[in-house]
Amino acid sequence: MATYNAPLDDMMFLFEKLRDNKHYNDLEKYKEVNADLAKDILEQAAKITENLILPLAKTGDENPTKLENGVVITPPGYKEAYKKFIEDGWTSLSCDPKYGGQGMPKTISTFFDEMLSSASLSFKLYSELSIGAYNCILHHGTDSIKKKFLPNMVKGIWSGTMCLTEPVCGTDLGLLKTKAIEQPDGTFKLSGQKIFITSGDHDLTDNIIHLVLARTADAPAGTKGISLFLVPKIQVKEDNSLGPRNSVSTGSIESKMGIKGSATCVLNFDEAIGYMIGPKNKGLSSMFTMMNLERIVVGIQGLGISEIAYQNALNYSKERKQGKSNNSKLKNGADAIIDHADIRRSLLNMKSMIEGERALSFWLAQQTEVSLYHNVSKIKQEALDLVSLMTPVVKSLFTDIGMEITSDAMQIFGGYGYTKDQGIEQLYRDNRITPIYEGTNSVQAIDLVFRKLANKNGSVIENYTQLVKNGIDESKNNVETKLFAEKLNQYLKILIDFTTWIEKSMKNSKDDVSAACNDYLKVLGLVAVGYSWLKVLDVSFKEIKNNKIFFEDKIETAKFFFDRILPRINTYYKSGISGSENIMKFKFN
Amino acid sequence: MATYNAPLDDMMFLFEKLRDNKHYNDLEKYKEVNADLAKDILEQAAKITENLILPLAKTGDENPTKLENGVVITPPGYKEAYKKFIEDGWTSLSCDPKYGGQGMPKTISTFFDEMLSSASLSFKLYSELSIGAYNCILHHGTDSIKKKFLPNMVKGIWSGTMCLTEPVCGTDLGLLKTKAIEQPDGTFKLSGQKIFITSGDHDLTDNIIHLVLARTADAPAGTKGISLFLVPKIQVKEDNSLGPRNSVSTGSIESKMGIKGSATCVLNFDEAIGYMIGPKNKGLSSMFTMMNLERIVVGIQGLGISEIAYQNALNYSKERKQGKSNNSKLKNGADAIIDHADIRRSLLNMKSMIEGERALSFWLAQQTEVSLYHNVSKIKQEALDLVSLMTPVVKSLFTDIGMEITSDAMQIFGGYGYTKDQGIEQLYRDNRITPIYEGTNSVQAIDLVFRKLANKNGSVIENYTQLVKNGIDESKNNVETKLFAEKLNQYLKILIDFTTWIEKSMKNSKDDVSAACNDYLKVLGLVAVGYSWLKVLDVSFKEIKNNKIFFEDKIETAKFFFDRILPRINTYYKSGISGSENIMKFKFN
Repeated sequence: MATYNAPLDDMMFLFEKLRDNKHYNDLEKYKEVNADLAKDILEQAAKITENLILPLAKTGDENPTKLENGVVITPPGYKEAYKKFIEDGWTSLSCDPKYGGQGMPKTISTFFDEMLSSASLSFKLYSELSIGAYNCILHHGTDSIKKKFLPNMVKGIWSGTMCLTEPVCGTDLGLLKTKAIEQPDGTFKLSGQKIFITSGDHDLTDNIIHLVLARTADAPAGTKGISLFLVPKIQVKEDNSLGPRNSVSTGSIESKMGIKGSATCVLNFDEAIGYMIGPKNKGLSSMFTMMNLERIVVGIQGLGISEIAYQNALNYSKERKQGKSNNSKLKNGADAIIDHADIRRSLLNMKSMIEGERALSFWLAQQTEVSLYHNVSKIKQEALDLVSLMTPVVKSLFTDIGMEITSDAMQIFGGYGYTKDQGIEQLYRDNRITPIYEGTNSVQAIDLVFRKLANKNGSVIENYTQLVKNGIDESKNNVETKLFAEKLNQYLKILIDFTTWIEKSMKNSKDDVSAACNDYLKVLGLVAVGYSWLKVLDVSFKEIKNNKIFFEDKIETAKFFFDRILPRINTYYKSGISGSENIMKFKFN
Repeated sequence: MATYNAPLDDMMFLFEKLRDNKHYNDLEKYKEVNADLAKDILEQAAKITENLILPLAKTGDENPTKLENGVVITPPGYKEAYKKFIEDGWTSLSCDPKYGGQGMPKTISTFFDEMLSSASLSFKLYSELSIGAYNCILHHGTDSIKKKFLPNMVKGIWSGTMCLTEPVCGTDLGLLKTKAIEQPDGTFKLSGQKIFITSGDHDLTDNIIHLVLARTADAPAGTKGISLFLVPKIQVKEDNSLGPRNSVSTGSIESKMGIKGSATCVLNFDEAIGYMIGPKNKGLSSMFTMMNLERIVVGIQGLGISEIAYQNALNYSKERKQGKSNNSKLKNGADAIIDHADIRRSLLNMKSMIEGERALSFWLAQQTEVSLYHNVSKIKQEALDLVSLMTPVVKSLFTDIGMEITSDAMQIFGGYGYTKDQGIEQLYRDNRITPIYEGTNSVQAIDLVFRKLANKNGSVIENYTQLVKNGIDESKNNVETKLFAEKLNQYLKILIDFTTWIEKSMKNSKDDVSAACNDYLKVLGLVAVGYSWLKVLDVSFKEIKNNKIFFEDKIETAKFFFDRILPRINTYYKSGISGSENIMKFKFN
């Protein structure tokens, strides 16, 4: 079984030294969330993920969810663990105190998301979608709906889902067919089939609150005729007690490559009673409140799985002895494989991406809070623009790199890594869903280039590159960070050139843009991680006297990132700008 | 279930138009193996792989091999299929007619290896290791051993294994402990445990011939004290009939991520009777006859799995409709996803690598035959040097690219790709063993830079780059291929610079070389595939009048490779030459 130690030192380093967003620090509601409190919470979070949740990963893989007589049964141990999980208040961590939540900011809950993803993605998904549904209801529900549904969702005794996909529509929600017929009492009756519904049914909670996209009888075709509905698995009576079963049933559950402890359901709605959430025909935009936050969390899943894969590869490389290293002092026997240059390179490859990603996601957590809660609308909007820009980047980059890291970690285990015993191949299989769900990584890249680079306020990407430029200019003034800053500046220039190319191509050939979007996303993502590293370096050189071991480690890890990861940008750029003419005219006979 | 059509057109194109190695064409023994014969054989091969073997892939994945009362049971249908497989003579395809084989060259059997890998890697492995063991015995066994064992192996009623790995030694065979004690009659008694033995036991053949590395009582330590032994599962009597069971038993079989239809065994040897093969203490070098050929075949496995993954992604992309493409003519509904630029890019990415790899492997098949059978020793040696150089490249590059392609193919299926129904996620899991077994891809890269670039005959890599240079110079003279040749020349220059850097670093810092070897292998591999494409282009422009559809397809596919795959070389080079100083001093606390 894979082992796991939550990377508390790195998390607390970020929380203490890189909580540097002035606007975030101005937020009244988080004034009291200081380092001591963060540390307390994260230590408790580490305990529960390491001890209670980690063992569920293997159990879930070996005993996938089952559908028995129409009821989904979660793997052994899930029920007991979930009970403890909600008793200790973990579902409520980031929720509004008004509904019983603890009101913690994303600067803390993001770390918890990472830990949970490391320990067991399957188990995490049961509460994760609830938080997504909670956010959607919080922002778009009426007061009476909120009062009726949110407290029990915050407690975790009810859970939530998001029901978008249908057999003929995944990416293209305009094709969806589920019908919602309005009733005289203002409720709706929903009929249709939804597929790939994560936690669509299970035995962990008393009720499940489905958020369902559907069309009213008079809805226009396409995405402009989609409304959002709340459909409880079990009806809730006036006095908030549970009533009769609603007509939502589980048709089947998917047999999957990984996350086998998570129930991925086909749900059949057969005149199920539902309540409209938000304005009619604007369901997609309401759902996207949930989707966007969720997409960042999926990126964090990739980060969390990368972290546990790295930890296990590192431990194994210290134990396993094979061959003599170039500098071996042995006469007989073999060195630990961590003494071999190539293994060290592979480990640093993982580490430098993981820590850079974590720094980026911490920066993004601050921006997200500003985008949600700052009271100056301009500041709020600017933060929102940056969050919108980075959402597809974090979702795609972190999950793709998660595939690279889990694969490289397996590789360090050699033949043992391919067997079920080590738990490492499971990480690879579990992570493989992350580049697919919540919009495939290509969909993210299309979203980035066609919708996120600019908006009505102007060029969002220009604001971002200017931000990076300013950071580089500052770091250039410091003799210790000068070389790093100059190197990043070269790649920033490539990003700027690539952006100009995208903007020009947008007018001449949208296909050129589409064929380049994955490459572009990677370039922006690596510059963003590089910029995060630069900020870590600024702090590290300043603080090195206080903790030589920790900050030397940071500086050397950053060096690897600048030397060996950033050069990938050259290839993405060169490949990306090569155009689409022959791609589009190709026959594919 | 995944579908499959053997790519006969592409194979026959290579066989007819790129069988261009003068020395190969001089080989007397293959004079009669013309295109008509090749076509006959490949058509039959296509039939058996598409109809008989393909369905075994899913069966094997859903019903893994079992160990019951010490006996390994293969999945349902394997036995019947294997019977037909050997009755039709497929195990004997490339074997020496002296022992009942059909004596076909690798220019044909390589294509068959690819087809089998596409259809079911698990099923293929049962005969593949037999051919490996056959080759080893053929080259190193005494006449009486050959007469006793080879005919039944060629017929396929006996199979073979290679037993190298032990719990403490995988990559580092110097650590192996299995003992071989000589008996008064000249036989040996072997005791020890071998792990990860592919087809170590199964119910498909009457006997299994194990080739086992072990140490005699007086053997020196390390790799210089390893001898090779033939140990039959069931003893063979003087009259060649089967005698009593030898004391080899199956301790357990591995539960694996993929290739679940293949039995990966722990074998216990308990004073099992064996015969020494080849000279005492030279077992490793004898085993490497088998290993090197086997490594190329593993590369072909990666190619075969890539091909079927591509075919299924292509078919699905023509069926699945989602979203409107940039140039959509639709008013309602959605275009097939193959109309989207980004999906086309992904498909061409696969296709351009697959066809380039196939061309490279066909070139290598010709070289291999020259290296084995040419009667001028200088020509033979030169071919052998090239084969040795390319062995680790083909093994690593093709299997790594197999991971990329099976992953990208899954991605095209979206959520459906992650479920078991489509058969696409199985390809990904099955292929994941290929970068690991027969020496991990990092071990291949180390082998390449430390052992294959130069030998006692001089600089092998220089001979190879000169060969490519000559090809480029020729193609430059042709107006149609000029631009391709010039582009490849830029990358050849990077390869040459990287080689110079490796040679220099070899003197200054072996760690620099070790930390760069994976990047170097990729650069050499991509140049080699690019060179193969250049030769395909030479023919394509010449022949375009004869088959416009086929050759236009080739030219456009090549264009993609030159525009979008070759640029990867920039990154590998830049990353590779960044040195190892901070990698080696890193603390990994």
